[in-house]
Amino acid sequence: MSEAQQKPLPDSVTIEYPDHGFDITHRASKSGARVGKLKTPHGTIETPNYIFCGTKASIKNLSPAQMIEAQTDIILANTYHLMIQPGADLVEKMGGLHKFMNWHGPMLTDSGGFQVFSMGHGSCADEIKGRNAGVKKHGLKGIDEEAAYFKSYRTGEVLKLNPEISMELQRQLGADLIMQMDECTAYQVTRDYTAKSMQMSLRWGDRSLIAFEKTHNNAQGLYGIVQGGVYDDLRIESAQYIASRPFFGTAIGGCLGGTDGEMYGILEATQPYNHPNRPIHFLGIGRIKDVFKSVRCGIDTFDCVMPTRIARHGMALLKGCANERINLMNTKYKEDPEPLDASLDIACSRDYSKAYIHHLLKAKEMLGYQLVSQHNVAIINKLMREVREAIKTDTLDTLEKEWLVD
Amino acid sequence: MSEAQQKPLPDSVTIEYPDHGFDITHRASKSGARVGKLKTPHGTIETPNYIFCGTKASIKNLSPAQMIEAQTDIILANTYHLMIQPGADLVEKMGGLHKFMNWHGPMLTDSGGFQVFSMGHGSCADEIKGRNAGVKKHGLKGIDEEAAYFKSYRTGEVLKLNPEISMELQRQLGADLIMQMDECTAYQVTRDYTAKSMQMSLRWGDRSLIAFEKTHNNAQGLYGIVQGGVYDDLRIESAQYIASRPFFGTAIGGCLGGTDGEMYGILEATQPYNHPNRPIHFLGIGRIKDVFKSVRCGIDTFDCVMPTRIARHGMALLKGCANERINLMNTKYKEDPEPLDASLDIACSRDYSKAYIHHLLKAKEMLGYQLVSQHNVAIINKLMREVREAIKTDTLDTLEKEWLVD
Repeated sequence: MSEAQQKPLPDSVTIEYPDHGFDITHRASKSGARVGKLKTPHGTIETPNYIFCGTKASIKNLSPAQMIEAQTDIILANTYHLMIQPGADLVEKMGGLHKFMNWHGPMLTDSGGFQVFSMGHGSCADEIKGRNAGVKKHGLKGIDEEAAYFKSYRTGEVLKLNPEISMELQRQLGADLIMQMDECTAYQVTRDYTAKSMQMSLRWGDRSLIAFEKTHNNAQGLYGIVQGGVYDDLRIESAQYIASRPFFGTAIGGCLGGTDGEMYGILEATQPYNHPNRPIHFLGIGRIKDVFKSVRCGIDTFDCVMPTRIARHGMALLKGCANERINLMNTKYKEDPEPLDASLDIACSRDYSKAYIHHLLKAKEMLGYQLVSQHNVAIINKLMREVREAIKTDTLDTLEKEWLVD
Repeated sequence: MSEAQQKPLPDSVTIEYPDHGFDITHRASKSGARVGKLKTPHGTIETPNYIFCGTKASIKNLSPAQMIEAQTDIILANTYHLMIQPGADLVEKMGGLHKFMNWHGPMLTDSGGFQVFSMGHGSCADEIKGRNAGVKKHGLKGIDEEAAYFKSYRTGEVLKLNPEISMELQRQLGADLIMQMDECTAYQVTRDYTAKSMQMSLRWGDRSLIAFEKTHNNAQGLYGIVQGGVYDDLRIESAQYIASRPFFGTAIGGCLGGTDGEMYGILEATQPYNHPNRPIHFLGIGRIKDVFKSVRCGIDTFDCVMPTRIARHGMALLKGCANERINLMNTKYKEDPEPLDASLDIACSRDYSKAYIHHLLKAKEMLGYQLVSQHNVAIINKLMREVREAIKTDTLDTLEKEWLVD
């Protein structure tokens, strides 16, 4: 049992974040939606905003210049993937993630825990991403109060991850916003398991804070993560504890249910217990309909691989389109001379016909994936700009009807 | 036997190219090297220049904007690939290749013959590209005076290609510079076969001109192709015939031998017989050392898939580097903080460490291929700018030593 566990963080301990900040500049009158300014050492972004996933220190198919062209404000990278390849030591040696990737705006990293626990129970990732949980992976070798142990998919060696290691890895990577280590539980676990896991995540939160504080140099803002599965009371307990700790931000993690109704019911019930003045990040969630529902519950930032992942399957996100997207592989686009969205001031959306992109995808030309990926990023950024404007003018309901049709 | 073959083009027939032009502005004093201006309806480029391969109406991994950022002047697409997918009818319906691809500069298409004949004898492509000719493909179903017949790799149906069809396909695609239909013979065929094939290619050249003239609207300049294998006398006969015909440009096709010495011996011997005032294109050739040797024999343009193909294997072209390239997959680049070429004013070459690109390639991240592809295009364009300058200042020998080391 670690020393950290035996001596939880005293309530009196505070950590300052002088180079970070969060100002709520507008509040919607009809919901919990808000517009804010999130300040980081690499720039200030307006919220609500979308954090695009550069899993292995690269947005799939897109360069930083192309992300900026698509008006991207902030991206993330995954600690789990980077600790395996190329290793946090190397990234640190190369000057940190910003320099390594040539991305000089705000960045976030996660703790690494999510992917580790996804290897275990069935999994959480499958549920969050809506995949069938039938296939079990066997990368997770064990989990106890001290740490999680898992097999590297690259070398086969058994690796260890715990709050102290996660803080050290994330410090080496050097993102502006980082996450405490938590356990991400699956939907199908019992209430008892969920409760015990949530309590351990709170202890891991304290261990994360203690480890974080030792090398804190104002470059990073640490988020606590609210867990508690689908149980309102556990979520509330977790939120209150996280709010009492000197985190910079609040993240909502784990599985919130099997249906949208369940998910947003929990989010709504829990929202009053989150720290009122901290930015709130919703981990791994980000369909267009999620954005509209979540911002009303006070969510400030999202992250999801969806925009670039579906692009690699030929799916383009569109405003006012059934199911949010079209499948450009469909034969009906073979002779379609229209671009994806001529109103977007970017070549990928404006200067190529659907017929051309259909051809590229059919021919498996990489440019096809690049164009659709950049379009999806550009249109999500357009969505976020419009959402912020709609919160300011209290017209979110109208905007939602424009984006989402049955 | 076709009507066209029985009535070859009378010597008196002329075709004008009012919207095309070629002016030789400088000649090297010590070799046949020259600098010129090649005018097309989509812009004028300076020669010598390099034509990058957008095989299926897309440069692999790179958008037109990225090609322009790499200072590219001209690209090509392959008629053979486009006739199979998506079809020249579709490209025409979408407004032609320039509009379809969103490339608004000069473009070239080939006749489609090269790939068809590559399916036959072992093949020409393998030789030109330096690949082992051991593996035979069986796509070529037959060839006679009238046409070549081959199996579509997409649908399995037997397709026909001949001079009239090639001219019609290339008219539909709408590139600025197009190629006559010829037979591309392999290195290992007999002198007798080479001679008969070359004669047929001359007749196919006349049929191409007759077909071309019927729909000529000044949008396209037609190149005749010099064949004759490794035999100086056949090459000279072909060059003289092509020079006597109203082509806009001259292309050098087929296999010129198994060694660099043989290839450039033939090129040098043949050069005096090419039309003195027409642009000369070297089909499918384009290593850096080829550029230096060929421009001295009066070659004005090159095309080769090499820059983008080797990029997909992690190879970056560099100035003053043994074998012209480095393998970024090599472990020695794992911790190399230096960029590929900081002297190039483009992010891919200047703003990413070799360590980062090594990581991307190892992780099979598409951005790795994109960065190396764009770098290779950018450095070839730098090479061509320096070659043109060196011809003007008679310093080609010095420049060659800077680029090529043992």
